[in-house]
Amino acid sequence: VTIAAIFQAQGHVSVIILGSTGDLARKYLWQGFFELYTNQVNSGHSFFFYGGGLSPANKSSLVLFEILKAVNCPKDVSKERCAILKEQFLRLSRYKQLKTLEDYQDLSKNIQKQLQQEDMAEAGRLFYLSVPAFAYAEIADRINNTCRPSKGAWLRVVLEKPFGHDFKSAQVLATQLGNSLKDEEMYRIDHYLGKQVVANILQFRMENKKHLHPIWNKHYIERVEIVLKETLDVKGRIAFYDQYGVIRDVLQNHLTEVMTLLTMRLPLNLSNSREVLTNKLNIFTSLLPLSKSQAVIGQYQAYQTEVQHELNKTKDHVSLTPTFAAVLAHVDEAQYEDVPILMISGKQLDERVGYARVLFKDNVFSILVSKNVFKPVVDSEWKEVTEHKDKNITVLGLPISDYYVQTPIVQKEAYTELISRIFAGRQNSFVSTENLLASWDFWSPLLTGITTLFPRVYPGGNENKDMLDIAVKGRDLSYINEVVLIKQDQMGGQNVNNFQVMQGKFRSDEMVSGWTEELIEKLASDIEEVAEKAILESGVFHLAVSGGASPLALFHRLALHHFSFPWKYTHVWIVDERCVPLTEFESNFHSLHDHLLQHVKIPYYNIHPMPVQLNQRLCVEEDRGTWQYEEEIRKFVNASSFHFVLLGVGYDGHIASLFPGVKPEDHGENMVVLTESPVKPHQRMSLTFNAINKARKVAVLIIGKYKHEVVIQLSRVKEETTQWPVTWVKPEKGSLVWYMDYEALLG
Amino acid sequence: VTIAAIFQAQGHVSVIILGSTGDLARKYLWQGFFELYTNQVNSGHSFFFYGGGLSPANKSSLVLFEILKAVNCPKDVSKERCAILKEQFLRLSRYKQLKTLEDYQDLSKNIQKQLQQEDMAEAGRLFYLSVPAFAYAEIADRINNTCRPSKGAWLRVVLEKPFGHDFKSAQVLATQLGNSLKDEEMYRIDHYLGKQVVANILQFRMENKKHLHPIWNKHYIERVEIVLKETLDVKGRIAFYDQYGVIRDVLQNHLTEVMTLLTMRLPLNLSNSREVLTNKLNIFTSLLPLSKSQAVIGQYQAYQTEVQHELNKTKDHVSLTPTFAAVLAHVDEAQYEDVPILMISGKQLDERVGYARVLFKDNVFSILVSKNVFKPVVDSEWKEVTEHKDKNITVLGLPISDYYVQTPIVQKEAYTELISRIFAGRQNSFVSTENLLASWDFWSPLLTGITTLFPRVYPGGNENKDMLDIAVKGRDLSYINEVVLIKQDQMGGQNVNNFQVMQGKFRSDEMVSGWTEELIEKLASDIEEVAEKAILESGVFHLAVSGGASPLALFHRLALHHFSFPWKYTHVWIVDERCVPLTEFESNFHSLHDHLLQHVKIPYYNIHPMPVQLNQRLCVEEDRGTWQYEEEIRKFVNASSFHFVLLGVGYDGHIASLFPGVKPEDHGENMVVLTESPVKPHQRMSLTFNAINKARKVAVLIIGKYKHEVVIQLSRVKEETTQWPVTWVKPEKGSLVWYMDYEALLG
Repeated sequence: VTIAAIFQAQGHVSVIILGSTGDLARKYLWQGFFELYTNQVNSGHSFFFYGGGLSPANKSSLVLFEILKAVNCPKDVSKERCAILKEQFLRLSRYKQLKTLEDYQDLSKNIQKQLQQEDMAEAGRLFYLSVPAFAYAEIADRINNTCRPSKGAWLRVVLEKPFGHDFKSAQVLATQLGNSLKDEEMYRIDHYLGKQVVANILQFRMENKKHLHPIWNKHYIERVEIVLKETLDVKGRIAFYDQYGVIRDVLQNHLTEVMTLLTMRLPLNLSNSREVLTNKLNIFTSLLPLSKSQAVIGQYQAYQTEVQHELNKTKDHVSLTPTFAAVLAHVDEAQYEDVPILMISGKQLDERVGYARVLFKDNVFSILVSKNVFKPVVDSEWKEVTEHKDKNITVLGLPISDYYVQTPIVQKEAYTELISRIFAGRQNSFVSTENLLASWDFWSPLLTGITTLFPRVYPGGNENKDMLDIAVKGRDLSYINEVVLIKQDQMGGQNVNNFQVMQGKFRSDEMVSGWTEELIEKLASDIEEVAEKAILESGVFHLAVSGGASPLALFHRLALHHFSFPWKYTHVWIVDERCVPLTEFESNFHSLHDHLLQHVKIPYYNIHPMPVQLNQRLCVEEDRGTWQYEEEIRKFVNASSFHFVLLGVGYDGHIASLFPGVKPEDHGENMVVLTESPVKPHQRMSLTFNAINKARKVAVLIIGKYKHEVVIQLSRVKEETTQWPVTWVKPEKGSLVWYMDYEALLG
Repeated sequence: VTIAAIFQAQGHVSVIILGSTGDLARKYLWQGFFELYTNQVNSGHSFFFYGGGLSPANKSSLVLFEILKAVNCPKDVSKERCAILKEQFLRLSRYKQLKTLEDYQDLSKNIQKQLQQEDMAEAGRLFYLSVPAFAYAEIADRINNTCRPSKGAWLRVVLEKPFGHDFKSAQVLATQLGNSLKDEEMYRIDHYLGKQVVANILQFRMENKKHLHPIWNKHYIERVEIVLKETLDVKGRIAFYDQYGVIRDVLQNHLTEVMTLLTMRLPLNLSNSREVLTNKLNIFTSLLPLSKSQAVIGQYQAYQTEVQHELNKTKDHVSLTPTFAAVLAHVDEAQYEDVPILMISGKQLDERVGYARVLFKDNVFSILVSKNVFKPVVDSEWKEVTEHKDKNITVLGLPISDYYVQTPIVQKEAYTELISRIFAGRQNSFVSTENLLASWDFWSPLLTGITTLFPRVYPGGNENKDMLDIAVKGRDLSYINEVVLIKQDQMGGQNVNNFQVMQGKFRSDEMVSGWTEELIEKLASDIEEVAEKAILESGVFHLAVSGGASPLALFHRLALHHFSFPWKYTHVWIVDERCVPLTEFESNFHSLHDHLLQHVKIPYYNIHPMPVQLNQRLCVEEDRGTWQYEEEIRKFVNASSFHFVLLGVGYDGHIASLFPGVKPEDHGENMVVLTESPVKPHQRMSLTFNAINKARKVAVLIIGKYKHEVVIQLSRVKEETTQWPVTWVKPEKGSLVWYMDYEALLG
């Protein structure tokens, strides 16, 4: 085997940059690809570079030529060699209009022709999509249909954020892309992941595992801070920025990534991408859901004017897009329980700084790499800084000389670094689809929650003073300084959250109503109050809960904000269950476990799932599951009278799994029965009216505008209407309370 | 009804003080009873006071007379009235020898005669036992047999600590007393409970509930400190003190009481003694078990010489009795999770100070009653101190004027206060039997654990400097300053904990041995290591554990010290189970739940109790519980091969519930079977050899000198000996490891 033969074997690579004359390409991409070329020129690969764009070649070829001429050689390359490399690079690059399907077909033909001419095997095709995200799906579709490489060669399509603006849009985009590209063909770039410091977090944790492992937990960690503050504004980028805001722009991607790297379980092997990804995803499943009270948002004062100007709006227009946000997250693993994780970012702040730090509680451990802890092991590509330019600098109260400061020996540009990783096929430097969706799943509820919130207006720069200082209180986050500078006339609109929870009557029973969040808060407090009272009286509290989506927010509220809820003395029962194994996602118990039980410390004995699965089969009459649950109720619950029963109402007026047409007398004295649902899965187990009406307190929770129609109907029908099962709920010795949010009540 | 008639109705009270000329009686008791008399003289009660003692009347009557003459009137009593009251008190009091049974009979006759003479109804008899604790049982027996009051009148017997020196002795004493006296007849005095500040803790919490409730939890509380430091030594009291030490003398009773008052759930009604007691007992069930690593002990330097002198010992004699102790406790309620509760007390320290304080994390809340929080409500018997003698005093870094300082309007002596409460029958100012035993139950394991530990020797007073400073690290406590001043020749003896865990062979398998605590530590670490590896490989760890007492220490170790144990990915299985309901104390699962599962956050799905109860009956063949468990194993455990099986060995060589005589072939391919135990409860469910030998790793844990005989036998018998079931344990593809402590191994 000759050296030439090895060269040959590496094959030909086609690089296609879409949006090749745009800002990003001009500043970073071509430079990155040129460096890739200089590094790979002797590796046996051959290259061809296409700059793609919507405008015709006669308009853009020269523009591209000017960009290409401006690239720089790495420092260690001699002047002579640099000139040769640049000349080669220019020769191997050309502009190609990529607008119509035919353009793409033409591109592919071009590549094939070239391969034939040069008699080279194809190694792969790399498409770099530096274009607006809305164009991704179509381009991916065209690549898939016309530009796939020959068999055995790879296809890599690089995407830049944004990848959607919430869970749903991200999912739609992922599905669209998934129709055209395989998971391993997509390289979603978070250029943050290319930064050497970020890329090094896991390695640092691994190499210093011996010292870090024993203290990497709630007993030692005071809090984690992940911060990216900027002094710049977003002038000139409003069209983009106003639709995204700081959370989508920075927190959902960059800061979340750093957070997972700091908290994920260390993999056995750093280079095992699958293992790294799995551990990362585990952190997402352990993140406690975020609510409004764990975030504060702000907006710099000039932003409104900039919006009005750039978006051509009138003076009445108000944008609620936050340009500053601080968010408090928690990982629900025993190891990190109650460790506050702060993510903070914003524009027009008083300083430009980015860091992630882990603060330790004890005097003994003050900061991760302060000298009195231990001397960290550093990668050979890193060196220790021992001479500091300014010795008087203090970091967190200690002189800088007390720290081990590390710096990479060769400073690499993030894009250059990333491009070389794409070329090397190192998938775990990129955002996988699962990772992306997990992150949106985490952030979306918060983003929805704050859509109607007014950001605190801050003047910008040093004038901000302490306006954006924040305080962690328990699991909540708030501004320390309570003075808000919002001028109503300037901001326009009204604060929609001014309403209080209100009390009234509905169907001659008590009703509580409010905006969703306040209503849930009230319900959670009411339940805790009933629990406290029941426990004082009898030492125990029996709570029966329904399935469905409505109670989820309540479960979150209870898990996150009622940390003195007496779970130890609380028994949890199920109002109704689908006939599926308890470990399935469809199971009501599974949802209860996922959203509540796994987050609180409740004794095993106090948890009472319905026995839908017995003898390895589901809801078979002769297995007597209903009888068994009834016996369990009789054994634990005094007079079989639950202290609190939480119900929802379906669109058809059903409660529990008691559907239209059913009457109390159908079930006689039974407390638990098997029923048939009109929708899948059809088989159900359910408490009966008999069991529900024995309860001391029954709450019916109705949420969302889609339920408004049901509420209207219910306000009209008589009691004990067989077509409306909820009308049979009448606690014999207890009370019924309706909890409805304004959307359900008012439409 | 005339006023005289009402007076009459209150009846006659006989007070009998045993040990009436002793130190305590002389200093406090007679004064207390005199004040009681002055307060009650117009209440319609009539009184007679007997000073009892072992010496004859001719010797002690005059001594008592001198004591009685020295009592003082309360300040608000005029001189004239005081003279009259003292004269009356003297006339109503007399000395009575109480040595033999006849003396007690005589006393009772005396009282009856007096009642007849004065034609009064009897209200009650109050015996105050100011005598050594060893005499309690006999005196109580005599009171019961000879001195019970007439029907309808009360009997109250007051006891002073010590109430035993560990759980067992306290229980013996409680049982003895219980044979003679009813629970409500015993008033165990902890004079600490008479201190107004302590007595006021609950009331303060109640009255300021609105402010305190939201912050009275782990999210706000940094730590709790309960401190009683003394500058005195124990010279002259060594005979008593050397048997008790500071933990029994102060921590087990006084400081524990304050701790429960600070952490217990507030009762609905403060005056409901039963409710207060129940809530107090709940805290005890929630206390995490203490281990050696949560305590540090010390002994002042002169103590050894004092012991040698007072106990008449030679220079070789060494006492390990601690005169200083700091202990770190945790309450395992969600509300207080990981809140360090420090209890500290000692003799010969640098200052005399006693306080309990709750420190808050946040800047906003710095200390319970600092002025920037809120203005506390104070009882009408308390007043706020606004003028401070020394305005420059700073408390915890703030000038004293920043605090609300409260002081009782009338300063009452603890004993006077307690005596008036005994008279009023206010039981909850006294230590109930349940409370006492619960407290010993908590402290005894620690006291046992430290018996062989050398206390750090400290010079005493200001010279102690930072020698006794302590640091909380995670859940452990240690001295900050690691320099230990023990001189081996001075202390004598050797440090029995110098041994390391050692590895060897037993019955040709691996063996690990060490002192019990180190062995358990090693086993716990080994399990965590196996868990980590299993999860890295397959995402899950399957652990099967046996019942019995041996694993309890392991469970505690895992619950308390392995806070990053991956419980979320761990499934827990049961090796064998008794055929009793899972909620019974006898159940192996119950013990596992009590000692481990309830303290960790483990998903409901990961817990696999054996289904011994089905269809409301226990271990009935046709209910197919064994089949069900087998199916569950097959469904969850890859190849039905547990990652770790933990076994114990019975005195008869049984493992799991596989008793002598059983052979693997008896169970064929079954993995779970019903078996018969030679001891009660006879019926069992058990994994078979087949299931156990499929495991990757099997550990056999043998602890305690009583198991030494079994170890000797086992070292001799051949493999697969039917009379020794453990000899059939031979994991097919895994390994067997013996964990034996030195006592089991060496006898």
